[in-house]
Amino acid sequence: MEEKKNYDELIRLLNQCKYAELKEKINEENAANLAEFFEEVPEDKRLLVFRLLTKDNAADTFSYMDSDMQEDIVNSITDNEVHTIIDELSVDDAVDFLGELPANVVKKILKDVSEDRRNIINHFLNYPDDCAGSIMTIEFMEFHWDYTIGKAMELIRKTGFDKETIYSCYIVDNKRKLVGVVSLRTLLLSDDNKKVSDIMEDDVIFVHTLDDQEDIANIFKKYNLIALPVVDNERRLVGIITVDDIVDVIEEENTEDIEKMSALLPSEDEYLKTGVLSLAKNRIVWLLVLMVSGTFSSAIINGYESVLASSVMLASFIPILMDTGGNAGSQASTLIIRGMAVGEIALSDILTVIWKEVRVGFICGVILSAVNFLRLMIFGGTPLMVNITISLSLCITVIVSKTIGCVLPMFAKKLHFDPAIMAGPLITTVVDSVSLIVFFNIASIFIL
Amino acid sequence: MEEKKNYDELIRLLNQCKYAELKEKINEENAANLAEFFEEVPEDKRLLVFRLLTKDNAADTFSYMDSDMQEDIVNSITDNEVHTIIDELSVDDAVDFLGELPANVVKKILKDVSEDRRNIINHFLNYPDDCAGSIMTIEFMEFHWDYTIGKAMELIRKTGFDKETIYSCYIVDNKRKLVGVVSLRTLLLSDDNKKVSDIMEDDVIFVHTLDDQEDIANIFKKYNLIALPVVDNERRLVGIITVDDIVDVIEEENTEDIEKMSALLPSEDEYLKTGVLSLAKNRIVWLLVLMVSGTFSSAIINGYESVLASSVMLASFIPILMDTGGNAGSQASTLIIRGMAVGEIALSDILTVIWKEVRVGFICGVILSAVNFLRLMIFGGTPLMVNITISLSLCITVIVSKTIGCVLPMFAKKLHFDPAIMAGPLITTVVDSVSLIVFFNIASIFIL
Repeated sequence: MEEKKNYDELIRLLNQCKYAELKEKINEENAANLAEFFEEVPEDKRLLVFRLLTKDNAADTFSYMDSDMQEDIVNSITDNEVHTIIDELSVDDAVDFLGELPANVVKKILKDVSEDRRNIINHFLNYPDDCAGSIMTIEFMEFHWDYTIGKAMELIRKTGFDKETIYSCYIVDNKRKLVGVVSLRTLLLSDDNKKVSDIMEDDVIFVHTLDDQEDIANIFKKYNLIALPVVDNERRLVGIITVDDIVDVIEEENTEDIEKMSALLPSEDEYLKTGVLSLAKNRIVWLLVLMVSGTFSSAIINGYESVLASSVMLASFIPILMDTGGNAGSQASTLIIRGMAVGEIALSDILTVIWKEVRVGFICGVILSAVNFLRLMIFGGTPLMVNITISLSLCITVIVSKTIGCVLPMFAKKLHFDPAIMAGPLITTVVDSVSLIVFFNIASIFIL
Repeated sequence: MEEKKNYDELIRLLNQCKYAELKEKINEENAANLAEFFEEVPEDKRLLVFRLLTKDNAADTFSYMDSDMQEDIVNSITDNEVHTIIDELSVDDAVDFLGELPANVVKKILKDVSEDRRNIINHFLNYPDDCAGSIMTIEFMEFHWDYTIGKAMELIRKTGFDKETIYSCYIVDNKRKLVGVVSLRTLLLSDDNKKVSDIMEDDVIFVHTLDDQEDIANIFKKYNLIALPVVDNERRLVGIITVDDIVDVIEEENTEDIEKMSALLPSEDEYLKTGVLSLAKNRIVWLLVLMVSGTFSSAIINGYESVLASSVMLASFIPILMDTGGNAGSQASTLIIRGMAVGEIALSDILTVIWKEVRVGFICGVILSAVNFLRLMIFGGTPLMVNITISLSLCITVIVSKTIGCVLPMFAKKLHFDPAIMAGPLITTVVDSVSLIVFFNIASIFIL
C-alpha cells in the first residue's frame, strides 16, 4: 500500500468536464484521500469539485483538509453552505477549524449557528491550547448507572451513529458524575437484563479539562487506551479524547521537542507553507542569543592572547576541541531530555545520571584522546608537549561536557522550563567556554 | 490524574506479610499499574507476589513488564508456569517477549508449547524487525463474505473475548483473500438478515507483511484508523495491526530519529537500565568520525597560519563564527529532516527548499552581522577593518550554512540513507570548514 494515492483519473475526469462521472467517483472515495486530492485540484476549480460532494462527504473531507485549504473553501462558498458544514462537523473538528480563524470571521460564522451549538463551540474555543479541553469531543456514549444492558444497547443503536466512538461507553450517576466505564465488547458479551453498573469497570482512568496533552498522551501509552474520559472539577463527565487525536498530539509534541532542541521556536505550520519571514523569525531569536553568549568564548581567547601568540599553531586545535566537546555534551543532553519526555528518567535520578555520565565521559574521553594522540604523533608534525596538551584537554573536556550535558536539562526541568531548550546548541555554547579554559590552562603548564 | 500511582499501601501489605489481603488488592488492579508496582517490589519478593496473581492477571501483567523484568520472572518460575503464561499471552506479546531472549532459551521455552502455537510463534519470530509482520497480531475477527450479519454477530459473541479488537472485522472470500472491512458500529446498526458483503466497505486499506512500520504509522495518521489488516503476497489476510501498537512505533521511531540527529547510535533500551559500556559504545563511533573529519578545520587554520600570525586577535572570532554557522545549518537541517519524516517534504521539492533557505539565510545573516557589527563598534575595541571582516564572514557563513543544512539531508534521502544522520553534529563539522575558508579569505583581502 503506497502512502500517496494517484489521482490522475479524477483529474482527467475534471479536465474533460465529465462532472457526473467525477461526482460519482469522488463520493465513493475516502475523506482523507479526497482532502489530498483537493491539493492537486487547480485553485479555480476547487469550489466546483467541492460542490459535487454530498453534504456528509463535504463535511468529512473538510475536516481532513489543512487550515489554509479550509479557509479558502469557506471564503468562496455561501454563508448557508458554511453553516451546513459547521453543523455536520463534529464539535472538536469545528473547534479545530474555527480556532485557526480570526475572531471576527468566527463571530460571523457562528452568528447563524443554533444557540446551543454556538455556546458549546464558544466554550471549547476558550480552553487553552494543549489541554484536555481543547482536544476532547462531546460526542460520546453515556449511560445512567441504573440502565440495563438491553436499554444501553438500544441507546447505542439509536444514537450511536453520531458518536465519535461507541466502543468505550461511560457510566454516570444522578449528578452526571463519572462512576464507571464499559466497553462495547463487554456489553455485547453480557446478559441483557443485567445493569450496566454490575458489569462496568469502576476503577476508571480519567483526566481533567485543564490537564496537559503531553501527560495525557503518556497515559494513553501506559494503559493502551482507545479513549479516555474528561471530567470537570466536580468529576462530572464533559467529554472524551480518542486515540486518533492522541496520535496527532504525540507527533506534534515530538516535532516541538525536536525543534526546540535545534534552537528553533516551535511552529505548527508545514515548512513548505510557511513564509520566509516567519521561518526567519522562528530562527533569529536563538541565533542571536547563542551568538551573544558566544562572545564569552571570544573573551576567553582574548584573555589568553599571550599563550596563543607564543604558539599560533594552538589555534588550529580550537575547532576540534570545541566540536568534540559540543558533540559529547549534546549526546548526553539528548538522552536525558528524551528520557524525561517519555517518563523514563525522573528528577530524583540525578545522582545516578551524573555518576553514569562521568564514567561514560571517562571511557569516551580516553579513547578519543588516545586516537587523537596517535594521529598527532604519526601525521601531526607537532611537538610532543603540544600533543600531550591537546589530548589531555580533549579527555577532560569530554568528561566535563557529558556532565554539563546531563545536568542542565534536569536543572531546567527543576525550574519548570522545558528541558528541550538545554540541547545541542545551548550546551555547545556553554561547553565551548569550558573547553577553551581547560585548553589554555593546560597549555600554560605544558608549553610556556 | 497523576501519571504514576502510589503503591505504598501494597508495599505495606507486603512488608506486613498480609498476603491474603495483598492478593485480593493486586488482582483488582490494572495490569499496566501492576507492572509498574513490580518495579518497586524488592527483587527477592517478586516471585512471591507474582504467584499471588490469577492466571489471566499474571499473563496480562507480564505483557506490560519490560524485557529485563520478564526475563527475571521467567528465570525464577517453573517451566510449567512459563508455559501457562506463554499460552495466555496474545501471540504478538509472546513474540515481543521471546524476541528479546537468546535463541537457546526460546527453544527451551517453546519445546512444550503446543505444535500449532509453536509454529505460529516461530513464523512470527522470523519476520524482520520493524516490518508489519513483526508488529501484527493474529487474533482478529474474520467473516466469510457469505455470512449474514446475524451469524457474524453470533460469532463475535462466541469468540470475541480472545480477539485483539472486535471493532474492526474483516471479510474474506473462499480463498481467504481480503475483500472488505466492516466496523462493529455498522454491524450493530444494520439489519441481521443482510449479508456482511452488502454492508462492508470494499475499498479496504491494507499493508503487506514486509511493509515498513514507519510507513504504516503514517497510514494510521492519515486515515485516523484504529486497526489495519495485513496481507501476504496473494492478498490473503494474515493479521491485523492495532493503533495502540502504532503509538509505540511512533514513539520508537521518533526516539530513533532524535538519537541519530544527535550523533548517537539508536538504542531501544531505557537510559537508566543501560550499562555504562553500552552507552559509551553508542556514542564513541560518531564522536570518532566527527573528530577525524574535524581535522579538516585544523588543516585549514594551519594553512592560513600567516594570516593568523599577523593578527592573533582574529582567532578569538573563530568560535562565534563556527557556532553561529553550525546553529544556522542545524536549524535548516532539522526542519527538512522532520518535514521528510512526517511526509510534508518530498525530494521533488528540493529547488523550492533551497530557494527558501537562501532567502531565510540572507535575512538571518544580515540581522546577525548587523548586531555583531554594532556590538564590535561599541564594545569591541577592534579596528574597523576587522569588524567588517567578521560581520561579512558571518553573513556569508549563515547563508551557506542554511543551504548546506537543507541540501545534505535531501541528498542522504536520495541515496537511501536515513536523512536524520545529516543533522546538527555532521552539519556543524561541514559548516566549520566552510566558515573558516570564508573567514580567512575575507581577512586576506581586508586586513593583509
